[in-house]
Amino acid sequence: MTTEAESGTPGAPRAAGPEGGVDASRIAAHLATFADLTEPGPGCTRLAFSPLERRAHAVFARHMADLGLSVGTDHAGNTVAELPGTGEPRAIGTGSHLDTVPSGGGFDGIVGVVSAMEVAEVMVRSGTPHRRPWRFVAFAAEEGARFGQACNGSRMAAGLTSSADLSGFTDRDGVTMADAMAGVGLRPDLVDRSRWRAEDWFAFVELHIEQGEVLRSRGLDVGVVDVISGSTRLRVRATGRATHSGGTPMHLRRDAMVVAAECVVLGDRIARDPARRGVRVTVGRLTVEPGSITTIPGEVEFFVDVRDVDPVRQRETARVLAQEFAAVAMARGVELVTETIADTPPVTLPDWVADHARAASDGLGLPYQVLPSGASHDIQQIGHIIPAGLLFVPSEAGLSHSPDEFTPTEQIVPGVRVLLRTLLRLDEADR
Amino acid sequence: MTTEAESGTPGAPRAAGPEGGVDASRIAAHLATFADLTEPGPGCTRLAFSPLERRAHAVFARHMADLGLSVGTDHAGNTVAELPGTGEPRAIGTGSHLDTVPSGGGFDGIVGVVSAMEVAEVMVRSGTPHRRPWRFVAFAAEEGARFGQACNGSRMAAGLTSSADLSGFTDRDGVTMADAMAGVGLRPDLVDRSRWRAEDWFAFVELHIEQGEVLRSRGLDVGVVDVISGSTRLRVRATGRATHSGGTPMHLRRDAMVVAAECVVLGDRIARDPARRGVRVTVGRLTVEPGSITTIPGEVEFFVDVRDVDPVRQRETARVLAQEFAAVAMARGVELVTETIADTPPVTLPDWVADHARAASDGLGLPYQVLPSGASHDIQQIGHIIPAGLLFVPSEAGLSHSPDEFTPTEQIVPGVRVLLRTLLRLDEADR
Repeated sequence: MTTEAESGTPGAPRAAGPEGGVDASRIAAHLATFADLTEPGPGCTRLAFSPLERRAHAVFARHMADLGLSVGTDHAGNTVAELPGTGEPRAIGTGSHLDTVPSGGGFDGIVGVVSAMEVAEVMVRSGTPHRRPWRFVAFAAEEGARFGQACNGSRMAAGLTSSADLSGFTDRDGVTMADAMAGVGLRPDLVDRSRWRAEDWFAFVELHIEQGEVLRSRGLDVGVVDVISGSTRLRVRATGRATHSGGTPMHLRRDAMVVAAECVVLGDRIARDPARRGVRVTVGRLTVEPGSITTIPGEVEFFVDVRDVDPVRQRETARVLAQEFAAVAMARGVELVTETIADTPPVTLPDWVADHARAASDGLGLPYQVLPSGASHDIQQIGHIIPAGLLFVPSEAGLSHSPDEFTPTEQIVPGVRVLLRTLLRLDEADR
Repeated sequence: MTTEAESGTPGAPRAAGPEGGVDASRIAAHLATFADLTEPGPGCTRLAFSPLERRAHAVFARHMADLGLSVGTDHAGNTVAELPGTGEPRAIGTGSHLDTVPSGGGFDGIVGVVSAMEVAEVMVRSGTPHRRPWRFVAFAAEEGARFGQACNGSRMAAGLTSSADLSGFTDRDGVTMADAMAGVGLRPDLVDRSRWRAEDWFAFVELHIEQGEVLRSRGLDVGVVDVISGSTRLRVRATGRATHSGGTPMHLRRDAMVVAAECVVLGDRIARDPARRGVRVTVGRLTVEPGSITTIPGEVEFFVDVRDVDPVRQRETARVLAQEFAAVAMARGVELVTETIADTPPVTLPDWVADHARAASDGLGLPYQVLPSGASHDIQQIGHIIPAGLLFVPSEAGLSHSPDEFTPTEQIVPGVRVLLRTLLRLDEADR
C-alpha cells in the first residue's frame, strides 16, 4: 500500500528510500494492542513495574523475535532487540517506554516503542543494508507517578540509579521499587550489571508525542528537540491538629488543609511570576487525613513537581517553595516537612544528532520545528552516556497523562519516516 | 464506694440525693467497652449504620434489659429503654449517640449514652420514686461524616428526615443510607412509623462533651448550652483538564487543584473576616483525580462545612462561598458545581429547661457556664418536637473528632450528677 496520502503533507515529495514502507495500519494495530493492556477505569493504566507493563514488554519482544531479531530483557526490565550490522561495532538505537500514569493515555511512550517496532519491520522487509547494529528498546518504568522518580529503566541503564537505591522508593501502598521489580520477576539486586557501556554506542534517538500544543498550533508534523526540562520533586507533609469543625473557633485552628491550600496557590503564583518565566510548578497528588467532612484535617501530604529548562532556576524555585511553605505553616501553627524525592537536571541535546534529524526532515520535505521538551524522557538519562536526539509528533490539544491523549496515526507516520531517515543517516555518519 | 474525691470540686457539698450514687468506675468500664468496638486504625472508627454501631447499640440495650427496663429498637436504629413512672403520662428522656467519625475518639456522643446508662442504674439501685416515664436513648447515625447529613436517627425520630429521603444520601463507596440501613437489619422503608409524638414527652436533656476549650480554660466541670450552631454543607466539584505537568505551560493550564486550593483559602479568609465573627468554615474532605505527581489534576471534589449560631449569617456565608468559588473557577477556565447536601439551622434551646439545669448545678454546688454549642447534636433535632436541654462536660484541650479526644472520668461524674438532678427536677416540674 502507499502511505503517501496519509503523510499529512500532500505536497511533500515521495519518500525514495525505505521510509516509503512505513505502514499506517501496522502502527494503528500495535497501538490498539497496547491500549488493551490496561487496568479497568478511564484511559490506560499500566503502572511502572506492574504485571501489565511486563505483558506489554512481552508483546514488543515477540514482535521483534518474529522479525528475526535477537531479543533480551535486562535486570532492570528494559527489553532490547538487535538487528546486526555489517561490521561497524558501535550501535545506534531507538525506543521509548510502555508504562503509563494512572488513567493516562495510549500514546505517551507507546508511540516511540511502536515507531521502533515499525522501523525494525521496514528495515527487515526492505533488507536495507546498514553498517551498525540497530537496537530497538522498550525502557521499563519511565513514569514517575508510582514511585516518585521517573525514567527508572533508563536511569539504571545509564548508571544513574543503582541497585542500592531501589529500596528507597515506595509507592502509595508502601511497596518498594525493589519489591515491585522482584514481584514481576526482575532482579533488583543485579541491575548494576545491566548498565550500558558508552563505547558500545554511537547515538540514540527517541520519538515521542509532544505533550504540548506547539506542533498542532503551527500545523507541523515533526519537532526536533534541543533541550529537555529537568524536574525536581518535593514531598510535603503538613501536620496540624485534627479536631471538630464545629467546636473549634477559627483562631484556635491548626488546619493542615488550609496550609496545604496556601502552598498550592503559592506554587502557582511563583510559577506565574514573570521573573521566573518558563518554570512550571504542579501539585498533582494530595491526600487529606482523616478526610471527614466534620473534622479539621490533621495531616495533608502533597507532591510538587518543579520543571524548567534552566537548572539554576529549577533548583532555586524548589528551594524558594520549601522556604515559603515553611513560613506559611509556621504562621498557622502547623508543622511542615519538605523532602526532595527526585531531582533530574535539564539536558541540552548535542547539536550534531539534532542536525541529522533536521537534515532527515528536510530530505523528506517535512517542515519541522526546533523546540524544548517540557516533559522528562528516557533519552534524558541515556543522553548522559550516549549522544542522543529526540523527535516529537503532535499531541491533539496538547493533552497528555489523560484518557484524552491522542495522536492520529496519519500524524505518527511522518515522524516514523523522519526517525528512520535519521537513523539511516546516523548509520552512515562518523559524527 | 464514695465518689466525692473524684468530683473535681472537693469544696462542693456532698450530694444529698441519689446523685451520690453516681459511680466513676462503672462509667469508666462502659467507656472502655465501647472503645473496644472499633475498626482497626488510630482512635475509634464506628461509622453510622455500620455493624459495629449496631453492636454498640446491643451493649446499651443489654445493660438496660439487665437493669429490668423495657428496651426496643425503632426502624431508624434508635434504641430506647424505659423506666416506668407512677402515672404522669409525659416522659422525660436523656441520651446521645454511639457512632463516631473515621479515626474519631471514644467520648463524642458515647459519654452521653454512658451517662444515660449510669443514671438508669442509679435510679434502679436507689429505687428513687418518680412520676414520669424515664426514657434512655441511644440515637443512630449522628455523625455526618459517612453520608453528609448529621443526626440521622434523631432526625427520623423528629420527622425531619423521611423514608423517601434515605436513597438520596450516599457514602464515598456509593452505598445509599437506605442500603446501609437495610444491610444492618433496619427498615428504611418503615422509618416514618418510628416518629416520636410530641404529646408523649415532657422534656429531653442530652449530656455531651464540649468539643471546645471554654470549660477547661475556666476550670469548670459543667456547661449549660443556650444555643446550638447550625450547619450548611456544600459538595463542590471542580473540573479542569488533566494533562502533563511538564508539557503544559502555566498559562494554558486548567488546574482543578489550584482552583480548589484557592477556594479553601478563600473559605478560611471569609470565616476570619471580623464582619462575620462567629461563623466557622471547614474543608475536611478533598480528593484529587487522577492523583498522579506528573498530571495536572483534572477533577477535585471537596466538602465545605459552614457553622454558625446565626441562621442568617450561616446561609449568607454559604451563598457567598458558592458565588466566590464560581468566580475563582471561571477565572481559571475550570468548571465548578456547588451543591448543598445538608442544611440544619441553629436552635435556641428553651430557657425553662436550661433553668432547671442551672438550678440543679447550683443545688449540687457545681459552678457552671452558659455557652453556645459549635457542634450539632441530636438534641437539636429532638428540640423541634420536645423541649430540650444540653449539658456539657469538658474536653481535654478542646479536642474532638480525633484519636486524642479525651475527658477524664472524674470530669464526667459531676456532669452525670447534674444530669440526674436536672431529670429529677423535670420529673417533678409541670414546666
